[in-house]
Amino acid sequence: MKNTTNQADLIVSGRYVLPTWLHRDRIKDGAVAICNDTILAIGSRNELLQQFPQTPELHEPAGLLMPGLINTHTHAPMSYLRGIADDLPLMVWLQEHIFPVEAELDSEMVYQSTLLSIAEMIKSGTTSFCDMYLFAKEVARAVDETGIRAWLGEALYDFPSPSYGTLENGFSYVSELFEHYEKHPLITISVDPHSVYTCAPSLLEACGKLALEYNALFVIHLSETDSEVDTCLKQYGVTPVQHLEKLGLLNERLLAAHCVKLNPDEIATLAKYQVKVSHCLESNMKLASGTAPVPELLEQGITVSLGTDGPASNNDVDMFSEMSSVAKVHKVAALDPTVMNAETTLHCGTMGGASALAAEQQIGTLEDGKKADLIVLDLDQPHLTPIYNIPSHLVYCARGSDVIHSIINGRLVMKNRQLLSIDEEKVIGEMKKISQKVLKIKEKTGARG
Amino acid sequence: MKNTTNQADLIVSGRYVLPTWLHRDRIKDGAVAICNDTILAIGSRNELLQQFPQTPELHEPAGLLMPGLINTHTHAPMSYLRGIADDLPLMVWLQEHIFPVEAELDSEMVYQSTLLSIAEMIKSGTTSFCDMYLFAKEVARAVDETGIRAWLGEALYDFPSPSYGTLENGFSYVSELFEHYEKHPLITISVDPHSVYTCAPSLLEACGKLALEYNALFVIHLSETDSEVDTCLKQYGVTPVQHLEKLGLLNERLLAAHCVKLNPDEIATLAKYQVKVSHCLESNMKLASGTAPVPELLEQGITVSLGTDGPASNNDVDMFSEMSSVAKVHKVAALDPTVMNAETTLHCGTMGGASALAAEQQIGTLEDGKKADLIVLDLDQPHLTPIYNIPSHLVYCARGSDVIHSIINGRLVMKNRQLLSIDEEKVIGEMKKISQKVLKIKEKTGARG
Repeated sequence: MKNTTNQADLIVSGRYVLPTWLHRDRIKDGAVAICNDTILAIGSRNELLQQFPQTPELHEPAGLLMPGLINTHTHAPMSYLRGIADDLPLMVWLQEHIFPVEAELDSEMVYQSTLLSIAEMIKSGTTSFCDMYLFAKEVARAVDETGIRAWLGEALYDFPSPSYGTLENGFSYVSELFEHYEKHPLITISVDPHSVYTCAPSLLEACGKLALEYNALFVIHLSETDSEVDTCLKQYGVTPVQHLEKLGLLNERLLAAHCVKLNPDEIATLAKYQVKVSHCLESNMKLASGTAPVPELLEQGITVSLGTDGPASNNDVDMFSEMSSVAKVHKVAALDPTVMNAETTLHCGTMGGASALAAEQQIGTLEDGKKADLIVLDLDQPHLTPIYNIPSHLVYCARGSDVIHSIINGRLVMKNRQLLSIDEEKVIGEMKKISQKVLKIKEKTGARG
Repeated sequence: MKNTTNQADLIVSGRYVLPTWLHRDRIKDGAVAICNDTILAIGSRNELLQQFPQTPELHEPAGLLMPGLINTHTHAPMSYLRGIADDLPLMVWLQEHIFPVEAELDSEMVYQSTLLSIAEMIKSGTTSFCDMYLFAKEVARAVDETGIRAWLGEALYDFPSPSYGTLENGFSYVSELFEHYEKHPLITISVDPHSVYTCAPSLLEACGKLALEYNALFVIHLSETDSEVDTCLKQYGVTPVQHLEKLGLLNERLLAAHCVKLNPDEIATLAKYQVKVSHCLESNMKLASGTAPVPELLEQGITVSLGTDGPASNNDVDMFSEMSSVAKVHKVAALDPTVMNAETTLHCGTMGGASALAAEQQIGTLEDGKKADLIVLDLDQPHLTPIYNIPSHLVYCARGSDVIHSIINGRLVMKNRQLLSIDEEKVIGEMKKISQKVLKIKEKTGARG
């Protein structure tokens, strides 16, 4: 415990504090002291109550305090398409159901849909997310209003966008984002070329230059499907990973989403350049893309974080569900029950995410001096009883709905499952209207087809 | 709607009724009328309110009414071992962590642990389960007291049991169960030889005879692991399925749990004898056993139901989580996103379960004359918004915690997530004591080893 002379604004306490992903680090009857946006101290409740007398306390007798979960790849605004079409081949799904509606997207749909996803994220334990979509200014507006932490970018590609129109406008749009959010406490702008199959080499290089200029993350979908790899081989004679390497775009600021189709050489290449991976297992399962070689990535020392992908392809943004799938699917894929143990999986969902976002000094664990991003789960529930090992419960038993309080950047954004920065009822009402509009667009485009 | 002259006891109504697994069968602003333990009528809310005036109504404006989920394979009492050891090879897990504790099992541990699992089941939408474990009289006691519906049996095997001791006593124990519960409205006794690797042919044959005598289900673990198949081949020169066929034990009352390791000939054999399958995917994933060939089983017309397996190997008894995994894992295993669509998966979790338990006339759908086993979900939540397709939401987005009311056999057992037949706080308290006892046993046996 440092900063012992400072005044705390709030003490949060409970039956356990799990400051990291390791069971051995748990503190029984523990507490966290917060000042402004920062963690001042972590320790036993008794000690902290003595150290910071007369500080307001949020005490949850059956509570488990832990770092908020970090979702490193999603398209939060896609909640307006949640469940509109499922169980279809990828190209049918995209071309007949997703693209026709996306073509008529507007800023209000993006704003409301992002609010909805943020509500779902906070209610299921996520405190930070990394987003790639269109109308990113609207995503940023929703993030700013609700007080969640986000890395976000505008998807750039060769064809005209319903958001910014031409690519030239696209780059202006991104520059405006960088300028506007330069000093925002919660928002970090990234550079987001969509993929190697939708971006010409010149666009990828321009993005690389921009990311370098702003020292920003370069976020891209990479090696998601066989079809992407085949197309790249045909078009450029190399795999997507090799293609980015040749363009000089592999580096420690590259956050590559998916990485399902990798050979051992490509894994070594990603390791060499310290590329970060966002593993989006549930989306890869649902779209039948395959299972990313995560145990092999981890063995090579690559940072693996977790992403839900968009709520149209998952169909949720629930990181507890994602962790549960990750821990189990890799075991059966490897036919080895020791693969992706609970602590490793929990690391991917917390500190791995922080590292992937180059924010390991700010978030991912509960430590003095880090940002106060923490969640409290209610342990006194049948499915969490009895308790022998905390990471095991968090990965194999806990649900997003077990999260009762959430604090982001020192601000209480959910208390007793009531969202404090979002009018949940209003957002749900707005989304019902938007879904009617979406159905009309679908009908119209269906009639056209 | 039949029985129009009868008096109803209760009308349950909501935004939608989904009486089957098919989206097209949904009723907007629908209701279900119940008399005693039975569904009297299903239809629009307005019609039913007119038809049964002055009947008490449980109206949930944002509610979805649907059949309760059916868990066809679990070991409910194993909740005392939830999370005590994970991420281990199967034999290390069993021999070093599970068996030493099970050897000191007593009836109180089974009773309390079953209460805990029933609490979890009701709170996550299950209204029927099929259980195999030890001290089955205690399981039955917990079922009787809590009002859930269950098929249950005492696990029989060649070695002495901590429950009944010798096999001779085991058969007496099972006979007593049959006699005691012959006319129970909620409990049906089954005959449960543990597996082909723990039961000699003579024991399996005796069980077959007993099941025939009582016209009962014959429940067995079958072809769960490579090791089981290899052992059977070595010992008997045939696979487990062939072994049961040779013993004359394959028939339409056989409920085979797991069925992970099946070749096409064995699938044809199971189809020929109308054997029912309980698919326990999450357990098979976590223990790295493999992925059962479910699409192939369904293609051959075999009834596939879902089981969570015990809470020590899953680590929960949550059927919504199970359905979500089933729909996604088979897609990626087959590399085909059209496999195990939402309606097929929902069928497995409801009507498939009813068929597996030879109860297709009683449960599995909401129909006039069937038992009133139904659950109500709260649709007005971020992760269930918007809604285009109900089965999609139930399989890909819904969580057990979305279930707010549960009615089993016409009795309201949960209202607004408060359990009405279980003292949840007391059970959680008792389980904390039991977990201390378990840790002492572990310590003692660890010291021995």
